[in-house]
Amino acid sequence: MDKTYINVIKEVDFKEPVFIEALPGIGHVGKLVAEHIIHELEAEKFAELYSPSFPPQVFVNEDGTIEPMKNEFYALKAEDGQDYIILVGNTQGLSPEGQHEVCGMILDFVESFGVKQMYTLGGLGTGQPIEKSKVFGAATSKELAEMLKENNVTLRSADGGIIGASGLLLGMGMLRGMNGACLMGETPGYFIDAEASKAVLKVLLDILGMKVNVARLEERAEETRKMISKAQQMEREMAERMHIAPGEEDLRYIG
Amino acid sequence: MDKTYINVIKEVDFKEPVFIEALPGIGHVGKLVAEHIIHELEAEKFAELYSPSFPPQVFVNEDGTIEPMKNEFYALKAEDGQDYIILVGNTQGLSPEGQHEVCGMILDFVESFGVKQMYTLGGLGTGQPIEKSKVFGAATSKELAEMLKENNVTLRSADGGIIGASGLLLGMGMLRGMNGACLMGETPGYFIDAEASKAVLKVLLDILGMKVNVARLEERAEETRKMISKAQQMEREMAERMHIAPGEEDLRYIG
Amino acid sequence: MDKTYINVIKEVDFKEPVFIEALPGIGHVGKLVAEHIIHELEAEKFAELYSPSFPPQVFVNEDGTIEPMKNEFYALKAEDGQDYIILVGNTQGLSPEGQHEVCGMILDFVESFGVKQMYTLGGLGTGQPIEKSKVFGAATSKELAEMLKENNVTLRSADGGIIGASGLLLGMGMLRGMNGACLMGETPGYFIDAEASKAVLKVLLDILGMKVNVARLEERAEETRKMISKAQQMEREMAERMHIAPGEEDLRYIG
Amino acid sequence: MDKTYINVIKEVDFKEPVFIEALPGIGHVGKLVAEHIIHELEAEKFAELYSPSFPPQVFVNEDGTIEPMKNEFYALKAEDGQDYIILVGNTQGLSPEGQHEVCGMILDFVESFGVKQMYTLGGLGTGQPIEKSKVFGAATSKELAEMLKENNVTLRSADGGIIGASGLLLGMGMLRGMNGACLMGETPGYFIDAEASKAVLKVLLDILGMKVNVARLEERAEETRKMISKAQQMEREMAERMHIAPGEEDLRYIG
Repeated sequence: MDKTYINVIKEVDFKEPVFIEALPGIGHVGKLVAEHIIHELEAEKFAELYSPSFPPQVFVNEDGTIEPMKNEFYALKAEDGQDYIILVGNTQGLSPEGQHEVCGMILDFVESFGVKQMYTLGGLGTGQPIEKSKVFGAATSKELAEMLKENNVTLRSADGGIIGASGLLLGMGMLRGMNGACLMGETPGYFIDAEASKAVLKVLLDILGMKVNVARLEERAEETRKMISKAQQMEREMAERMHIAPGEEDLRYIG
Repeated sequence: MDKTYINVIKEVDFKEPVFIEALPGIGHVGKLVAEHIIHELEAEKFAELYSPSFPPQVFVNEDGTIEPMKNEFYALKAEDGQDYIILVGNTQGLSPEGQHEVCGMILDFVESFGVKQMYTLGGLGTGQPIEKSKVFGAATSKELAEMLKENNVTLRSADGGIIGASGLLLGMGMLRGMNGACLMGETPGYFIDAEASKAVLKVLLDILGMKVNVARLEERAEETRKMISKAQQMEREMAERMHIAPGEEDLRYIG
Repeated sequence: MDKTYINVIKEVDFKEPVFIEALPGIGHVGKLVAEHIIHELEAEKFAELYSPSFPPQVFVNEDGTIEPMKNEFYALKAEDGQDYIILVGNTQGLSPEGQHEVCGMILDFVESFGVKQMYTLGGLGTGQPIEKSKVFGAATSKELAEMLKENNVTLRSADGGIIGASGLLLGMGMLRGMNGACLMGETPGYFIDAEASKAVLKVLLDILGMKVNVARLEERAEETRKMISKAQQMEREMAERMHIAPGEEDLRYIG
Repeated sequence: MDKTYINVIKEVDFKEPVFIEALPGIGHVGKLVAEHIIHELEAEKFAELYSPSFPPQVFVNEDGTIEPMKNEFYALKAEDGQDYIILVGNTQGLSPEGQHEVCGMILDFVESFGVKQMYTLGGLGTGQPIEKSKVFGAATSKELAEMLKENNVTLRSADGGIIGASGLLLGMGMLRGMNGACLMGETPGYFIDAEASKAVLKVLLDILGMKVNVARLEERAEETRKMISKAQQMEREMAERMHIAPGEEDLRYIG
């Protein structure tokens, strides 16, 4: 595996689909939103992306089975006739060059189905307890930024940028004529944040004119928390491999 | 040396060989198991792998001779007629891209001999003293996970993943239709852990229906300990080069 | 986006242009100088450079619109008939390989317009409060170094080098027969340093025989300060993603 | 500059030359030895190597002129008719992949002149004050290791390896049938160590049957100390750029 590649599982016909990205990030805010929509509206996986710039590891599921690191594309045909491509996954590209290669390939792929508009979902970590999670946003044009404001999104004027796939997809998309916006749920960032996800989900549904049961999001958050506990365990082990265990010099370059 | 390459030393005919991987990792648990089998059953080295993503260094043997960083493939024809390819070495690929390239090439190579099943061996560092070393495991399918449980392996449900070649080979192997399992000996991770290795060896022999003298493993551990002391020395030197020695700015990007 | 590329916005005819580089660096000294000249003399953007080795992120402007990471080439035709190409941007290439690729492409591009001489602008951080900002410099030949001295530039003899694009462009330019000099404004390095920028601007104008209103530089510094506050916010967030937020293991390789 | 390349300055006819490598490393022990031989015996520079994996920076000489990062090949025709190729420089490749590419190109180049034997020179940092600097060594064969012992070299049995170009050139050279040895002067590693260099120089001259005035080495050490003070200054600046200066987020991936 020398190059990032996409494995198409099922041919799907899309009509001007909107692209929604929710790869893992702060507080798993975006991931939770996207997985909720996928389950509630029974979106169907139609492609997987693998990359040599993903971390060299695998996850282990509860039943002891192994899950490779990957990104997954879901097809959703909404009741109102609007098509969506939703991107989720268990990792992001890591190096700058890797992120650019992966995001470039994602854009090539969704563009081939006619995508012209995208929403990228994430969290905005404050490191502070939060009473009521605000939704922050930014957009590829003034008109879209205005539209966000009308949907109760706080524009991130003068206080920051967007790191990782949620930012890079918009930035690289702009350069090929796509437009879109990023929605970020304010979160302390310490735990799986269902509250921040709910706030982002509501704004997204308003913007898209989509209907999804919001109440069941909390249950889903519980499942994700289990998955995260795995991730933390892996992090502890990685730390051990790199710093504690004697003779682990072979891994000292990692990181 | 721009690319990872494999130097075939001897042509070997394999009949549906099983692949066993034991590159260096936590507590050198897997390495010890594989080297024990190689010596006891007189497996024969038939190929070597070199990679530009291995650390830019060499080991020095006790007689003052130099040993390049490499992975080594051994051929084993067991008494019951089963063939094995065993992979050991003194290092792993380092960057995510390097690990993917090396593991991809390893899989290409063993697949060319008809490998469909693999066992990857490693340690699971707890950072805690351990009374009796458990064997943890994960597998590419529910059936294989069930089989592990029947062999007294604790499935790693909900508490972690597998980092490095032991995980990545299984993950990338799955994507090309191979199946297999990872066996990890529980270890404090601070020293060469012959106890953890014994536990993994016993489970592996049970699963494979192979017979090997387990008692001599402890002696072999002693030899490995010497090698490790070398590795720690190298790590100290690396630290000096990077942080203490003046004028060593040229190496500051390493790591 | 697998490779660095340059997007030419407007064809410009240059007559032996001088190249001025001022990508972001210590105290934003060079950036401030170049942006001041661009605004005061109404230089015109004619090309943009994008690279996969730029950080995988975007900036957000005050109006909530997104700005990709990029370098920008401006054309300036001075009153005395001298042409200039000025390079500014919101980032630099990151890895050694990335920096070399980006700087090589920049040199190819400006060389195609006949550039034979360049000035690279930056800051020299002392970490100390400074009473009156000196201008330090270095050059590709003894003659140019002598010329710098005559313009009140302190040569950086025996106490340092030049890191990043300001150094690499001169070093790589030398190898293709270009000549030039680097001007560095002494700065504590903790804030947007209009004083250091003024000192560099004056020296540069003297050397080039160019006339620009120096007084308005202070106002411009204020605008830049706002932009920087964004950058600091991004840095805090990056730190959170990497160290504080649980489950952010996917990003642990970044950096 | 996408690839490492060698610029041949002068065509030289060599008769089975011996290759001596002394790129910068701990205590600048090897560098000092090689530069001393080059000056005393008037070896002539005949080629330069540049690489995108060298650090993206330049050095500044005492007269304010800029010096790119590079490796330099010198030709030496000794009185006894033996030819030598001596490699020095102001940097090493940085990433594992970069080191492998650079060392592979160096070996291709010297092999094209008929090199079959090499000596790599370096320091072995102890972090401790040293009374009388021992010379440590390792070799590509038992015979050469024996020869080292007869020349008062302590074999590095069981206590370490060789990191960087000095190790990698020998390891990669072995794989293409070259043989050779590494000589490492024991040094605290904190300063330019003329004592360690003298010890290595004496052993090297004994092995090669070469005659060079050893006394003048101390003077040369003084010059090198000045150069090093520059390097330390650069390191401090790099640290400032990365950790202290606000808004330096663009450089945060470096390192």
